[in-house]
Amino acid sequence: MSLKSIGIDIGGTKTAVAAVDSSGKLHARTVFETRSNRGFAAGLADLSKSIHRVLNDSGWAMDELEGIGIGCAGPVNPLRGTIHNPYTLPGWEEADIVSALRHESGLKVILENDADAAAVGEFRFGAGRDASPLVVATVGTGVGGAALLNGQIHRGIKGEHPELGHIPVLPGGPVCYCGTQGCWESLASGTAMSLAGKPFGLGDSRAIFAAFPDNKRAREIIERAVNATATATWTLLHTFLPQRIILGGGIGEAHFELFAAAMREQVRAATQIPKDSVEIVRAQLGQDAGVIGAAALAFQNTNP
Amino acid sequence: MSLKSIGIDIGGTKTAVAAVDSSGKLHARTVFETRSNRGFAAGLADLSKSIHRVLNDSGWAMDELEGIGIGCAGPVNPLRGTIHNPYTLPGWEEADIVSALRHESGLKVILENDADAAAVGEFRFGAGRDASPLVVATVGTGVGGAALLNGQIHRGIKGEHPELGHIPVLPGGPVCYCGTQGCWESLASGTAMSLAGKPFGLGDSRAIFAAFPDNKRAREIIERAVNATATATWTLLHTFLPQRIILGGGIGEAHFELFAAAMREQVRAATQIPKDSVEIVRAQLGQDAGVIGAAALAFQNTNP
Repeated sequence: MSLKSIGIDIGGTKTAVAAVDSSGKLHARTVFETRSNRGFAAGLADLSKSIHRVLNDSGWAMDELEGIGIGCAGPVNPLRGTIHNPYTLPGWEEADIVSALRHESGLKVILENDADAAAVGEFRFGAGRDASPLVVATVGTGVGGAALLNGQIHRGIKGEHPELGHIPVLPGGPVCYCGTQGCWESLASGTAMSLAGKPFGLGDSRAIFAAFPDNKRAREIIERAVNATATATWTLLHTFLPQRIILGGGIGEAHFELFAAAMREQVRAATQIPKDSVEIVRAQLGQDAGVIGAAALAFQNTNP
Repeated sequence: MSLKSIGIDIGGTKTAVAAVDSSGKLHARTVFETRSNRGFAAGLADLSKSIHRVLNDSGWAMDELEGIGIGCAGPVNPLRGTIHNPYTLPGWEEADIVSALRHESGLKVILENDADAAAVGEFRFGAGRDASPLVVATVGTGVGGAALLNGQIHRGIKGEHPELGHIPVLPGGPVCYCGTQGCWESLASGTAMSLAGKPFGLGDSRAIFAAFPDNKRAREIIERAVNATATATWTLLHTFLPQRIILGGGIGEAHFELFAAAMREQVRAATQIPKDSVEIVRAQLGQDAGVIGAAALAFQNTNP
């Protein structure tokens, strides 16, 4: 029998809410602008309205649901159920979103970092099925990732989320807000690529890829991003030692073969790990990864 | 009531066997030369003799024991109970040490990579008590490490051990047998330091530290090792996000403050992790870490 849940994917710009069943099928979906600076009460009202809307659209009732899963642009505290992301969600500092939605819905509500939620989605419904350890890396506007062990989210100190995008790869590289220079994100993110292309009038990462491989500067910027991803792959192989690395994100999915070739070369070169079965695969859930992954959180803990 | 076990620490050069109780106290201990090239049957006979000897010395009987724990220079396969380390233990390829000792003793026998065994020992009896996630890094002749989550060993694909010593830190650095250049071990191990000092007639890592800080070359080599350890710390913070990092190994323990200062600086600089409670501490079990950690494996699984 198919179970039902609501997935909520909260980003700095947009929030998506969807009705998803336990086969991963999306029955209804709505998107609105997050505008966190209006404060948390206004955001909560939007969420509540959207939940009722997708329930209505899918013909589901609140009391049929297993629960509500939230993937939110981190940092979040999954144990306390609170958001503390002043950069991307200003106005929602320390918002106790889990208690608020639990109170309103009467349901179990689970909050995770969005990268963790997406990883759970890929593990349950996408490219990560049956893989352990599993690392899901997303290369897009930013670079992030998550690790799952037997389908369970790897948590660091205080239950928080490791920031794989800030793995160091190039000493003396671009300065990053994370506190170091030359981390993976500072070299491979869309933001980093745009920034590197600016002095040469290259535009955003999409324009840089369009100019590849003819334009020498574009080539250099893309090679730098690919090399950074290759080095970060070596790090992942020698820390989590995953059975599978899923590459996702806007850039990672659009240019999967380019990045995957460099990542697989690292796997082949490694002598100290049982590498023969390490797989590099493309994310499968696409643009709905966020809401589907969030919804999967509700199944994850009820139906393991 | 105190439980009893036998710990075995197998290295390329020496093997230690000890009688250890569940408070971590060592009751008897013997050491012999491994000489794996004589073949596994000869090694097994030595192990058997040594087990009986430490039982005799401690006044314990075989049937009082919880089990036998083995920490062995990896790669080993903990699930199959086999050793496959042709570099350090030639002549013991695919040796099924767990079955052999189980058959002989009638006891539960557990095999782990030596770094994992030492980490379990530190978690249970040493500097790692109650810490999760816990990373134990050893900087000595080589560089290695292990990660524990809630006291359980982090296992990679096929149950195998990640090789933290081969985290990349300096692109284009010294070539390593691991398949890359500039990994942590290639810059910070005793072997790497000796090699770097050779052209300047500096001798081994002990001699290099003795010449520090007056000798410019010694200073450069040591700074390189310290910087590599700092970068690897940043990697550990952004992958496992540990509550505590224990630094051990011959060099790590002898020069703990030098390394720890650089590691703590990384913790302070990081902005994307809940760093306030990340601790950098010295290993506590010293030269007996191997056998005590190995013995702890037997308690780990019987008395969690």
